[in-house]
Amino acid sequence: MLQYAVGLDLGGTNIKAALVERKSGIIASERIPTEAEHGVGHVLARIENAVRRMLRSASDKHVCGIGIGAPGTVNLQRTNLIHPPNIPGWTVVDVRAELQRRLGHHLHVVVENDANAAALGSAHYGTGRPYDSFVMVTLGTGVGGAIIWNNSIFRGSTGAAGEVGHMTVDSDGPEDEAGVKGAIEAYLGVRHLSRHARRQLKAFPDSCLYEIAGADLVRLTPEMLSKAASRGDEGALSVLEWAGQKLGAVLGACINLLDIRTIIVGGGVSAAGTLILDPARRSILAYIKPGMRDGVDILRETLGNKAGMLGAAYLVFELLDRHASTSEES
Amino acid sequence: MLQYAVGLDLGGTNIKAALVERKSGIIASERIPTEAEHGVGHVLARIENAVRRMLRSASDKHVCGIGIGAPGTVNLQRTNLIHPPNIPGWTVVDVRAELQRRLGHHLHVVVENDANAAALGSAHYGTGRPYDSFVMVTLGTGVGGAIIWNNSIFRGSTGAAGEVGHMTVDSDGPEDEAGVKGAIEAYLGVRHLSRHARRQLKAFPDSCLYEIAGADLVRLTPEMLSKAASRGDEGALSVLEWAGQKLGAVLGACINLLDIRTIIVGGGVSAAGTLILDPARRSILAYIKPGMRDGVDILRETLGNKAGMLGAAYLVFELLDRHASTSEES
Repeated sequence: MLQYAVGLDLGGTNIKAALVERKSGIIASERIPTEAEHGVGHVLARIENAVRRMLRSASDKHVCGIGIGAPGTVNLQRTNLIHPPNIPGWTVVDVRAELQRRLGHHLHVVVENDANAAALGSAHYGTGRPYDSFVMVTLGTGVGGAIIWNNSIFRGSTGAAGEVGHMTVDSDGPEDEAGVKGAIEAYLGVRHLSRHARRQLKAFPDSCLYEIAGADLVRLTPEMLSKAASRGDEGALSVLEWAGQKLGAVLGACINLLDIRTIIVGGGVSAAGTLILDPARRSILAYIKPGMRDGVDILRETLGNKAGMLGAAYLVFELLDRHASTSEES
Repeated sequence: MLQYAVGLDLGGTNIKAALVERKSGIIASERIPTEAEHGVGHVLARIENAVRRMLRSASDKHVCGIGIGAPGTVNLQRTNLIHPPNIPGWTVVDVRAELQRRLGHHLHVVVENDANAAALGSAHYGTGRPYDSFVMVTLGTGVGGAIIWNNSIFRGSTGAAGEVGHMTVDSDGPEDEAGVKGAIEAYLGVRHLSRHARRQLKAFPDSCLYEIAGADLVRLTPEMLSKAASRGDEGALSVLEWAGQKLGAVLGACINLLDIRTIIVGGGVSAAGTLILDPARRSILAYIKPGMRDGVDILRETLGNKAGMLGAAYLVFELLDRHASTSEES
């Protein structure tokens, strides 16, 4: 029997919603502004409406539940979303209770951290499909991460595991947004990457980036770096080489600790593709214990922003599997 | 019914063997030189003899099997010990087959990496008892590590997980013995710690360490550092503060990735106790994402070198549990 669920990706700017069929993936989807500035009740109403539209698009199909990936912390029971950054005024909300009250208790509701949801999406619909276990890193405004172990999210003691972005690669290094010293996010987060790039580009006065991003490079973005590097600009290549080395360092640390040798990189900055992943592939082995270097692979996730919705929907399918196996046992 | 097993800790210098009763711990034990220079066959014979003496000391008690903790890599099936460092000429040996051939196939034999075995010992007999999950770090000649997740060893994809010692804390830092850049072992491994200490102590010409370890400090050991620091020597305190900060950095990275908030530190250097652990406790929070700092704790393992034998024996008890639950199901 076909299984359907609604997968939601709740961001500070947009809510992305999809109707997902377990085997074939996204059937229908939409994107609406979050309008986070109007407060929690408003955002919940927008989520409710997005779900209703997806349920309507399912017409006579039986939709089992709603999965939601969201920034911030989620409790171990996967019901509450706690202090999502970018949604002002949101403290602790029992999203499951809210949505079941609005949409009916027949719908399962599962909440998960957005990086974890995206990794689950990769595991079942994306680059991660051939692998039972991998570490996912998303390079965007911030640096997110998640651990997939035996096809499921490794959640740790409180549900917060996988925070690769806050792992230090330089114990005396600069702080990231969260105040963590030398964290990889303090190098590869969009704002930080641009800042480091500006400093490094001083050695390359002929770089075409001065034309693209202005004489003071204040408008420099990772996309400009990729574009210039793909044209062979030495300054841009040097910045991406440097960034790739830092990325290799943190991924090497993950491999030493977890002995999970497949890494999947997603997010906006990863659109630079081989320009950043190749330097990371070159540097990573220098950060791994020799006996553990075989089979190390850094891959790119190409699902883009669909990964989050697909993974969110898969949370519901996982729940159905667990219910099925429990009822078989009893 | 009481359960007995022999627990072995195979080191490059000594073989430590114990008869262990599951509930009460070590009943009898011995330590003999490994005589690794005489080759693999000789070492296996010495292991065999040590086990025979433990079996005799068990007299009429029923011993279920033999657990062995050893340096180096162990395969996923926990039968083979691969390239243990410090035992020259040892390539791959099926230790289970060898010992069952010599001692009888009625004995279970389980092989495990020594850091993993020590962590399992801590989990069931030591500081780790109250915790379902923790990260163990051993500070000695090298820096070892292990992950205990839900009371068992987290082994990763090939059985090599938990290599905290090779995680980088400085992506441009010096290499450790294994050639890993900026690894924590390149700072806290005994030899490296002494080298860094000598450099730092230049700022403390009045340090009593110049009397203890000689004008050029070449004989400097971690024990001397601890001793001088406990007397209030400012140079020694400054070195341990520095070392504790590095330790906090790598442990913070572990917590971000695993969301396991209890850390247990063992090994010779940890004998410095609060002198190194207090600086680590002070620094670690600066290396952890803010939402994950609650409940973080760094504890000391006080079992000393008994942890390895106890954990090795426990490998057999775990195996018996699994057999019991399998036969109940069928």
